[in-house]
Amino acid sequence: MSLQVVIIGAVAAGPKAGCRIKRLEPSASVIMLDRDSIISYGGCGIPFYVSGDVADLKELTSTSFHMERDPAFFAGAKGIEVRSSTEALSIDRTAKTVRVKDLATGDQSDLPYDKLVIATGSNPMVPPIPGADLEGVTPVANLHQAQAIKEAVAQGQVGAAAVIGAGATGLEMAEALADLWGVEVHLFEMAPQILPGLVDAEMARMMECHLQAQEDIHLHLGAKVQAIEGGEDGKVKAIKADGQTYEVEQVILATGVRPNAALAQEAGLDLAGNGGIQVDEFMRTSDPDIYAGGDCVSIANLVSGQPMYLPAGSLANRQGRVIGSNVCGGSARFPGAVGSWCIKLFGLSLARTGLNQAAVQDLGRECVAPLVVQADRAHFHPDNQLMYLKLVVERGTRKVLGLTALGENGDAVVGRVNAVAGLLAQGALLDDISNLELAYSPPLGSAVDVLNAAANSCDNMLAGKLRPLSPEEFSRRLAEGPGGNTVILDMRAIDNAKPFLECLAPQWCHLPQETLMQRLDEVPRDKDVVLVCNSGVRSYEAQVMLDGAGINNTYNLSGGVAAVKKWGEPILPEDEEQ
Amino acid sequence: MSLQVVIIGAVAAGPKAGCRIKRLEPSASVIMLDRDSIISYGGCGIPFYVSGDVADLKELTSTSFHMERDPAFFAGAKGIEVRSSTEALSIDRTAKTVRVKDLATGDQSDLPYDKLVIATGSNPMVPPIPGADLEGVTPVANLHQAQAIKEAVAQGQVGAAAVIGAGATGLEMAEALADLWGVEVHLFEMAPQILPGLVDAEMARMMECHLQAQEDIHLHLGAKVQAIEGGEDGKVKAIKADGQTYEVEQVILATGVRPNAALAQEAGLDLAGNGGIQVDEFMRTSDPDIYAGGDCVSIANLVSGQPMYLPAGSLANRQGRVIGSNVCGGSARFPGAVGSWCIKLFGLSLARTGLNQAAVQDLGRECVAPLVVQADRAHFHPDNQLMYLKLVVERGTRKVLGLTALGENGDAVVGRVNAVAGLLAQGALLDDISNLELAYSPPLGSAVDVLNAAANSCDNMLAGKLRPLSPEEFSRRLAEGPGGNTVILDMRAIDNAKPFLECLAPQWCHLPQETLMQRLDEVPRDKDVVLVCNSGVRSYEAQVMLDGAGINNTYNLSGGVAAVKKWGEPILPEDEEQ
Repeated sequence: MSLQVVIIGAVAAGPKAGCRIKRLEPSASVIMLDRDSIISYGGCGIPFYVSGDVADLKELTSTSFHMERDPAFFAGAKGIEVRSSTEALSIDRTAKTVRVKDLATGDQSDLPYDKLVIATGSNPMVPPIPGADLEGVTPVANLHQAQAIKEAVAQGQVGAAAVIGAGATGLEMAEALADLWGVEVHLFEMAPQILPGLVDAEMARMMECHLQAQEDIHLHLGAKVQAIEGGEDGKVKAIKADGQTYEVEQVILATGVRPNAALAQEAGLDLAGNGGIQVDEFMRTSDPDIYAGGDCVSIANLVSGQPMYLPAGSLANRQGRVIGSNVCGGSARFPGAVGSWCIKLFGLSLARTGLNQAAVQDLGRECVAPLVVQADRAHFHPDNQLMYLKLVVERGTRKVLGLTALGENGDAVVGRVNAVAGLLAQGALLDDISNLELAYSPPLGSAVDVLNAAANSCDNMLAGKLRPLSPEEFSRRLAEGPGGNTVILDMRAIDNAKPFLECLAPQWCHLPQETLMQRLDEVPRDKDVVLVCNSGVRSYEAQVMLDGAGINNTYNLSGGVAAVKKWGEPILPEDEEQ
Repeated sequence: MSLQVVIIGAVAAGPKAGCRIKRLEPSASVIMLDRDSIISYGGCGIPFYVSGDVADLKELTSTSFHMERDPAFFAGAKGIEVRSSTEALSIDRTAKTVRVKDLATGDQSDLPYDKLVIATGSNPMVPPIPGADLEGVTPVANLHQAQAIKEAVAQGQVGAAAVIGAGATGLEMAEALADLWGVEVHLFEMAPQILPGLVDAEMARMMECHLQAQEDIHLHLGAKVQAIEGGEDGKVKAIKADGQTYEVEQVILATGVRPNAALAQEAGLDLAGNGGIQVDEFMRTSDPDIYAGGDCVSIANLVSGQPMYLPAGSLANRQGRVIGSNVCGGSARFPGAVGSWCIKLFGLSLARTGLNQAAVQDLGRECVAPLVVQADRAHFHPDNQLMYLKLVVERGTRKVLGLTALGENGDAVVGRVNAVAGLLAQGALLDDISNLELAYSPPLGSAVDVLNAAANSCDNMLAGKLRPLSPEEFSRRLAEGPGGNTVILDMRAIDNAKPFLECLAPQWCHLPQETLMQRLDEVPRDKDVVLVCNSGVRSYEAQVMLDGAGINNTYNLSGGVAAVKKWGEPILPEDEEQ
């Protein structure tokens, strides 16, 4: 008899596994269930559908060449039987059956399986806020919710909206509402930064500055949402946070998701501490005939070695293929993930792979992570844009642990992160990034790429030659003024330095780097000296020269004036060079 | 006494080494010579200066923040003594001196060194063509030549030009002249393809089609240039190739460069078979006190294990840093290169890392390299563009040997190549690319990235499940017509297939993939059947289904209609979908 496979969940991991099974084992019988009526869609596309970038919901449920991935498609093109609007109620591991319920008719039946695939996805977390159940308050966890939001907005019912949670989904939804539809958006985040846990505060702040500059976005960080209030019609009318009331017609709950692992748990399968289903590198659960993948599983973080919950369509697809191979007797492996991630908001892109600095410190491991700023291609090429990089390298082992990158040119930003992602999984060392051979031609790269430069900065820091100062610390010292313990020494040409001298002297002094060796006696010795140039390169040169001359009371402003401005230090004057 | 370092050559590797030495060892005395008057420039920027993208020559000799890198800059900012217009005549390795000649005064003297760095770069090859010495015939090996060309063009003296050699420099110069200045450019290449040795004919042809579509570019492949003819004024007047005469006012020799290793050879240092100076992974020559780097050295190809000559500013800079570290007693390593490379021409980008298919075959190694076509980001995102990838994987070992990518979005193209480059150096296997964790968000990537898809295609091919047909072979079979041995089965919807059926039936037949299993008896058995869809995905699905049904006389058109069109098959009708 042919192999009987049942797949629970038909969004990403499930369909991928099913298709792979049918390609490897055409005679297999594959039945795929989903409690929803809409299946096999790109959930990550929801904000782009709401924004209007994606005009029709069908595009999220179609192949690249416009074939709609509905049950008929799966039957004809893939040989898979899909039962949508069908819920899996329980798994009998001894009998090897799944009890299912047809949600239209209420009929229940038992489906036998040789191999079972659980791809039940995630559930949105609903925060315990009074009024979270009002009409107009919704997570964006499926296409029905997406459609309802878009309809309300398109019909002009939403003048102002609140988004609770400034993770990736919350931010993308905020942009979707504000950018095309001109909805006034209040974005509330409990943490003191956007994207908490995903990027360091320093990089998050650069994106925050960019968001704050957008007309319809109001960012409320460290905010406590107290209540959502409804009108007499039962619809949301306002949101109360930090004692203030904001009138809104729509509230989006974007406070994260958790693994939907109840079915697995009830069947007695092992769960990880993060609530995800425990799987081995073959994506097998604690029952060898049951596989699981996608947003319902816990995976290994290949950098930290710790379990990680990382719901992402990209991982779900990769896991689905591995499951498909192994269901058919293969031994394909999904060893885990390094945690690659990206977002583009109002034209500014931010991406990360591996661990950020804070995550490394949380693990009790010591690292360096200087901020590096450089053009994303030849600085003389007209298309060049500055890119902001933080490469994280462990002290002692010199192991590369992660990279965060930010810049206007999204493909270039993600390109740097992707170049490091695969190397993290291989346990690459710092020198592998120093020597990393990025393709070079002036319109497409630099002779010394910003990524190579970031590695070299880490190398210099580990060698004790670079003593960087973060924009935050610089800002703190600048705020102390001339009465504080810091003198700022501008190493640039007078044209660059002049506006800064005019408004910040006597704390801000001028000493061009190329004249430094002749003017050593002008370097203050009684205070800390922060060396400043446009990008941190010339000031590093100066720091090394001063060290060589026995003058060690200096710090180098990481990423220079470019980084401090991007970071949003308010008291700096405008500078034409930037 | 302080360390005495002499550096011969002040363009890329030399200055990088010098600056690194001064940062590590501020007390070192560093003297850097160059026979040219212009030093420390981005030679790769020359075509962009000629095109006008870079307005002023100074930008190529300046830092990113507009400090000109002249001898005064090196003295003040770097503590390096530069002697330009000074030629190194010979090296006395016993006395440890370099005999140098001041080209302005003719004075000669001996410079003592503890450590010597040779960074003498490359020399352009001048082809043995009669008339190659006429006025107006020039390589573009330095900024003087670049300036002369730009001046002639800007003054309107050049209506038509010839470029000999369709390597990277020749192509970039052709674009520079045609694109902004409207010069009619005849590009002559001896080989039957552009970029010979750099990319496979299949990928080269996609770029050739793109170039042929440009108004002022005339591509002459497999061409033999017989003579360059001058007028009475001694200036170039015409070029004769393949029996035809073309009137031109400028001829650019872009037939490649060879290592400038004469000085090293005369000093008795070992050279490699390719003419480059032999160095170890510390960039040390056969004399332990002499280092060499940049365009004058031979390096190891980390994929093939063979010696390689790869002149590139990016490698020169990395090597310069390694030399600097080691001159100061360090043990930094430059183990070699995988050969990353890229070019952007009239908006289309092409990049490669590692070995292309032809190079692997030349080594006698067996590989698979199916052409894969997919959008460079979520297919439902409006910014998406198709990307064309060829991943090369060795049979047996499953080792990844190289990747070539082509597409309109240059940063995305180079991003894929860079993501593989570092992994090649680590000896990555196919599954590392299948699972490669590219960051995903719809505006910046795909859930299953085109790179993952390329790896999966290789996997399917190695497993014997995918039998691809190249665009070239497809074109050959198409040309045979209905009388040949091939039937083409279009697996797409009728809307897509209709124009093809209208002009190519009965050889071109229609059988939508989703109806295949019900219509198996309509699949021809007496001829080869080529399965066709838009991108090669649905037709692969069909191939697998047919195999499962015991029908094995099929091939899958790699990359589908999209690839064949990009490749320039002339007889296909227009198709709205593309």
